[in-house]
Amino acid sequence: MKTPLNRNFIDAVRSSFSKQNAMELIHASIENIAQGRVDIKVPHWSGIEQQHGFVHGGVVGMIADSAAGYAAMTVVAEGASVLTVEFKINLVAPADGEALIAKGQVVRAGKTLIITKAEVFAIKEDKQILCAIMQQTIMVMHGKDEK
Amino acid sequence: MKTPLNRNFIDAVRSSFSKQNAMELIHASIENIAQGRVDIKVPHWSGIEQQHGFVHGGVVGMIADSAAGYAAMTVVAEGASVLTVEFKINLVAPADGEALIAKGQVVRAGKTLIITKAEVFAIKEDKQILCAIMQQTIMVMHGKDEK
Amino acid sequence: MKTPLNRNFIDAVRSSFSKQNAMELIHASIENIAQGRVDIKVPHWSGIEQQHGFVHGGVVGMIADSAAGYAAMTVVAEGASVLTVEFKINLVAPADGEALIAKGQVVRAGKTLIITKAEVFAIKEDKQILCAIMQQTIMVMHGKDEK
Amino acid sequence: MKTPLNRNFIDAVRSSFSKQNAMELIHASIENIAQGRVDIKVPHWSGIEQQHGFVHGGVVGMIADSAAGYAAMTVVAEGASVLTVEFKINLVAPADGEALIAKGQVVRAGKTLIITKAEVFAIKEDKQILCAIMQQTIMVMHGKDEK
Repeated sequence: MKTPLNRNFIDAVRSSFSKQNAMELIHASIENIAQGRVDIKVPHWSGIEQQHGFVHGGVVGMIADSAAGYAAMTVVAEGASVLTVEFKINLVAPADGEALIAKGQVVRAGKTLIITKAEVFAIKEDKQILCAIMQQTIMVMHGKDEK
Repeated sequence: MKTPLNRNFIDAVRSSFSKQNAMELIHASIENIAQGRVDIKVPHWSGIEQQHGFVHGGVVGMIADSAAGYAAMTVVAEGASVLTVEFKINLVAPADGEALIAKGQVVRAGKTLIITKAEVFAIKEDKQILCAIMQQTIMVMHGKDEK
Repeated sequence: MKTPLNRNFIDAVRSSFSKQNAMELIHASIENIAQGRVDIKVPHWSGIEQQHGFVHGGVVGMIADSAAGYAAMTVVAEGASVLTVEFKINLVAPADGEALIAKGQVVRAGKTLIITKAEVFAIKEDKQILCAIMQQTIMVMHGKDEK
Repeated sequence: MKTPLNRNFIDAVRSSFSKQNAMELIHASIENIAQGRVDIKVPHWSGIEQQHGFVHGGVVGMIADSAAGYAAMTVVAEGASVLTVEFKINLVAPADGEALIAKGQVVRAGKTLIITKAEVFAIKEDKQILCAIMQQTIMVMHGKDEK
């Protein structure tokens, strides 16, 4: 484990997350922050369902995108922000459970681009069932302020 | 233009969409339904913003996923439903405007799989600025009831 | 159409392509070069087949990747080179024909990243049948020499 | 580990691979076959290089696609074959080494679709350096003969 570029990466992630209204809208919260890893959880509630009563695939995508993007944020310098260039997600099982947890992880961090991945699990009766896998490209924006 | 497998494809799309709580949550609405094409619009409002004040990339992904998925639904038989297997989205510009419109389109429809694509535009002062492109794989579920 | 950053973009593409042994290996050639667009063709020959006698999906990916990457090269400054960050391809029909043509196109060109797409067609008895669609992210390397 | 649907999956993979001329063209060989996992290796030789002297990204994609596709083949019934629906690959480092090895793995196997992933490593002085990650969707073709 290398020394982080930003010692305050946990605060940086929490501060940015708190400004993401869209995360609040879906009732998402941060479960864990470590260097190169962030987990985001969302309870299963009616507002985020699709037509079969499972969590909407787009919401699965939102938390996977966010978890991996914030994982990238843990490895950038202070004051830098991160931007999703693209992501690709396979929905491998219905998002059926009491909650979903997206586990984001840095695969390789370059100066300009960070490649990440995420897995999303449905939590059902204390079991975690894999429901999505994602790959993502993140761009580092040096000295870009948040609102 | 071929005869649609389901003459009532417009009703099928509207009925399914109305059951997607997640679409209501983000204030999305259907703008247009034609054979092989569906457009979904979402106004820019504070609840769907990310930390820079633009629409969250995950929300852009949600409407792209839905527009293309419903485009697929316009070409399946009555009673069949559609399921997102995977999608990949490039966010090419900030989702900055008064509203976003996702234009989904069928690329190739097979019996089991339908390949689709979508473009998402930010509407700003009557101009449409491309902000995302997406490719998607849809699976056809024959005789699968919705809730 | 904007003035190209590199007036000699056609020479730049041809020169780079001629150094790609892998393109020669599969018998690929450049069919067309315009600002923001490059087409690459490969004849159907036994050496690039998969187990069903069609052109291997990986070869379809190779020419799609190259066509779109070289499309990106037509819009960068002289001396800059381009690098594939990632691509995603849907193989929508068997690559069955006398030849394949990959048509690459720039979607949006930024300073650091260029987003592109490509379509691959099988040419069969003078018809062009869509067999793959691709989305790609390209990174611009300023002042990076080729071998 | 479940009982394989096809006890002769190793023979099935070897037989199919031997019919893929494109794999022979690039000098690829199978390194390992296990239930749900296949590794494919390609030596670094001049014929598969791109313009900077590294292995062409399209070739990296070819072996990743094949390794993951054959991983899928290890979990299908006898006589069934597999088809790549789509794949997405991030090239995270130059393919620089004496050889490349693509390690394919099944993520989730359904009746019709199998979701897989692969990692590609460059082998350099006995070290393995990650150079690409891939996600893939495979379709199972029941009773589809190979040539």
